[in-house]
Order: sequence, then structure tokens, then C-alpha cells
Amino acid sequence: MPEALEKVFGIIRGSAVSQNPIIAEGLKGLFNGNGKLLRPGLLLLAAQFGKLREKHYQIAAALEMLHMATLIHDDVIDDSPLRRGLPAIHTRFGRQDAVLIGDFLLSRCFLLTAEYTSPQNALNLARLISIICTMEIEQNNDRFKSNISRRSYLRKIMGKSALLFSLACYAGAYEAKASREICERLRRIGYNIGIAFQIIDDILDYSGNQDSVGKPLGNDITAGLITLPVLCALHLDNSGTLRDIFSRPAFTPEEAKLVFTLVRSSGGVEAAGKYAETYTNRALREISSLPPGKNRDMLNMLTKRLLIREA
Amino acid sequence: MPEALEKVFGIIRGSAVSQNPIIAEGLKGLFNGNGKLLRPGLLLLAAQFGKLREKHYQIAAALEMLHMATLIHDDVIDDSPLRRGLPAIHTRFGRQDAVLIGDFLLSRCFLLTAEYTSPQNALNLARLISIICTMEIEQNNDRFKSNISRRSYLRKIMGKSALLFSLACYAGAYEAKASREICERLRRIGYNIGIAFQIIDDILDYSGNQDSVGKPLGNDITAGLITLPVLCALHLDNSGTLRDIFSRPAFTPEEAKLVFTLVRSSGGVEAAGKYAETYTNRALREISSLPPGKNRDMLNMLTKRLLIREA
Repeated sequence: MPEALEKVFGIIRGSAVSQNPIIAEGLKGLFNGNGKLLRPGLLLLAAQFGKLREKHYQIAAALEMLHMATLIHDDVIDDSPLRRGLPAIHTRFGRQDAVLIGDFLLSRCFLLTAEYTSPQNALNLARLISIICTMEIEQNNDRFKSNISRRSYLRKIMGKSALLFSLACYAGAYEAKASREICERLRRIGYNIGIAFQIIDDILDYSGNQDSVGKPLGNDITAGLITLPVLCALHLDNSGTLRDIFSRPAFTPEEAKLVFTLVRSSGGVEAAGKYAETYTNRALREISSLPPGKNRDMLNMLTKRLLIREA
Repeated sequence: MPEALEKVFGIIRGSAVSQNPIIAEGLKGLFNGNGKLLRPGLLLLAAQFGKLREKHYQIAAALEMLHMATLIHDDVIDDSPLRRGLPAIHTRFGRQDAVLIGDFLLSRCFLLTAEYTSPQNALNLARLISIICTMEIEQNNDRFKSNISRRSYLRKIMGKSALLFSLACYAGAYEAKASREICERLRRIGYNIGIAFQIIDDILDYSGNQDSVGKPLGNDITAGLITLPVLCALHLDNSGTLRDIFSRPAFTPEEAKLVFTLVRSSGGVEAAGKYAETYTNRALREISSLPPGKNRDMLNMLTKRLLIREA
């Protein structure tokens, strides 16, 4: 891991710390170096378009902690047993403590933000959490509903994923006192990367390699989550087989398996991939309008590696 | 309700707002005027020992929102069906949305704090949430354990309840630019009120009137929570009947009922009441050292009404 990210890790480990053995044990597993620190990485890269400061590392750490906290609560909500190939917090400590460890981490993220960054960042972070929660609730409410639009799907992943990428890129540039134009461009870059990233994440639940994804495939559909591959498959479903299954209020594990197979065989995965490509290209186009140099090249490379994962 | 608290309510209603129908509906029930706004009330009273400012209302609202958010998560964790006599959020919207509505409210509380108050308040608030979570986890971990000390009980209720009262009193005085001596005195007053308040709350689960408590009695022991009345009853348990039940790793609902009866008949409730009295008297003694006047009289009256509820 590059030195800069090691530093972010160090801040997280120093900040998300507790005398309580359960919290300490739970957090240790989270920050064991298994995470990719994507959002901190983007923030630090964006900061290079201005003047990188000490506080960038703190904000980067806060964003990663926010991300981890939402994952802990997500896993409780979805009852997913694994996270990054390891047992999820609630699998190890029970749902009750998992909710509280998530809250703890969220409070530490705010502490870091309040302590080191501009009040504007604290506001942005608080607003972002409101949006993430709102979109998660919408997603919950839309379980097993096949009549949602692709537009509604995109709105949800914007709120629950893309805005955090967007904030990472924006905050990096903003705190580095980059020009307003660059800040706004980086905000859009982060947004497009985030949308593409989440679409690919949703695709990998159908077509990924279980070992590299770190959790069993088909999780989403078993939980009733209608992601883009399903919506695309429904669109391509001329025989009506898929639509038939969705006409019921919920489906059995066997039906979920059938949906999984149909989504893969119908071209739903490839169609969803086209969307990811569109957003990736938008990000790459915006990146090409940034001031040329090593930072731009690195951002370009990172985006390609991140979003053209299968290539 | 006094005008000042109406104003706090207005800020909460304006701040904890959402376009999402589930969040909107969930929050509406929370802030329907059924709450007593104790913490905001104390904060505003404490502010009168300096200069009451507009932002006091915002901080008061933030503290109440923090309190409500922790209650939502508490009810999920304890699986309590009722809150203030009405169905708890998770009873109405399911556990998943309840976790998220709690997170949403927490983020709104931070938004308000970041927007209107001094950075010091944001820090204090974030630290407080860390402590509340930690103590809730300890409490969870101590379920069905009868060998915990009264000292350990007091430490837990300090973290999960008293510090919020303490922060309310302190922040009120601090933001009003009261003298350091008065700020510190009010911090101690809030602390003692908070400890007494929580002990009384725990007592009421054994001896209260179900209608005024707003939830069924005996909830705590059914959930395995060993509160002060139980610890006092165990201390008074010469026959060993109570200790016998606790020698098992957990107990059945029937055994929980038996514990409930034994705690009431053994004098455990009265002995716990003595503790509440001690902390109430400490608060009243500190209050009597505040500058005399209408504000001191009101704080004195409020404390008596709050903590000598049964009298």
C-alpha cells in the first residue's frame, strides 16, 4: 500500500479506538488492511490539484470511517454473513452490538471531522449521511418490486454510493484550495466513478468470482434487491418468464436462484455493463480536461483499473 | 408547553424532516409533543445563568435529536415494542428501517450542531455518542450477569444517560458565556440529575404505573438487564432464592417474573430509591450554591419534580 494510504490507515486506527474489548475487537477486523481505501485514495489524488495539507489525511480517514460504519449497518440490515471474505461484524458480535459499533464508528468519524476540518466539511458529511440513509430506506422499500425504473435505481445508487465518491474528490480539491472549476470538475468525476463503481458492484453479484468478491454471489436477489442487471434482464425478457416470477409479492430461494440464472443468460449483465461503461467514459472524459501531469495520469489509471476491472 | 420549548420543537420539526414518506412518518410520531424535552429544558435553564442566545435553541434541539436517535436504536436492540405508550419505530417500520431512521436522525443532529454551534460542541457531542455506544455495548454484554457490581452499574448509567444531562447543563452555561465556576457547577448538577433520573427510570420498571411509564413493567429483567433494584435485592437476598435463579446463564420468562416479584418484595426497590435520593440531594446542594434568583428557583423546582416523582 502506498505510504499516503498507510498514513490514513494509521489515523483510522488511532481514531477508531476503544478500551471496550468488543468494540476494539470488532474494529480491529475492519481496519486490518483488507479494505482498498478507494475513497481516501481519490481524495488524496484530488488534493494534488491544489496544495496537499496535513488535514487531507484526517478527512480521508473520516470518509473511510463513514463508509465502514454504513457497511456495518448495511450488513445488519441485509443480514449478509460475510464482508470482504471475513465474517461480518453482526455475525461475530450479534446484531445488537453491530448497530452500536456502527454508531460508535459514525461518532468517531464526526469527531475527526469536527476536530480537523473546515465546518463546511462537517456539514457536507452530515448531509451525506442523511442522503445515504434515505436512499437505503428507499432501497429497502423497493425490495421485490420489479416495476421500479432504471432511473429510480440510478437515483438510489447516486445517494447510497456515488455521492461519497463525489464528496471525496470534491473535498480533496476544495481543502487544497484548487480553483472552483477544478473542484467542480472533480466533484463530477467522483460522481461518475461512483455510479460506475456501484453498477459494477451490482453486476459482480451476478457474474463475479466469489473469492475476489469476498461474499457469495446472488446475495442481492435473495434479499429481493432489484439491481440494474435485473432491470435490464426484465427489459430483454421477451418470453415473460422473468416477469412471471416477479408478479408475486416475494419469491422463494429456489425462484431467486432461477432469477439469478435468467439474469445471467438473458444478457442482463452485459446490458448493465453498457451503463457502467457510459459513466466510466464520462469520468474519463472529465479527467482528460483536468490540467495535464502526473496527477491526471494517476487518476486516469486508477479510474480505468477500478472501473474496467474485468479487462 | 412553555414557549421556549415550543421553539425547540419547531427547530426539531424543521430539521428532522424528509421527503421520504417512511422517514417523515417515523419522525412525525417521534416529535408529536409526547416527549418531555427534559434535556432541552435543562439546557435553556442553564443558559439563563449567562446570556441566552439564539443558538441555544439549536443546540437544545440537537441534543434532543441525539437522545431520540439513541432511543430508536435502543428499542431495536432491546426489541421493546412500545415507546412513550406508542408503538416503537421498529414495531411500525421493521428493524431495518428503524436502524436507518436512527442514523438519519443522528446525521441531522450533527448537521444542526455543525451549522449553528461552536466546534467545541460538535466535539463534545461526537465524544458523547462514542461513550453512549460503548456503555450500551457493555450493558448488552452484562445481560444476565448478576455478579456485576453497583459501581459497574453506575458507570454504565453515567455513560448512557447522565453525561447527556451533564452536557445539556454545561453547554447551556458555556454558550451563554457564564463563568467557568458556574459552567462546572452546572456540569455536576446535570450529572447528578442524570444519574438519579436513570436510577428512577430503572426503579419504575419495577414499581411504576404502566400507563404513566408508557411501556409494560418488567421489561428490563425479561431482557436480562440487571439494574440497581436487582443488585440491591441480591444484596438483601439472605435466603439465596434470587441468587439461585441467577446462577443459570439465562432465565425463562417465568423465572423473570419470579425475579420481578422478588425484587419488589425484598426491598430492592426501596434500597435503589436511597441511591436516587443521594444523587438528587447532591444535585440540590449544588443548585443551592448557584447565584440566587428566579432561575435557580426554577432549576430547583424542576429537579425536585423530576426526581421526586412519586412524592
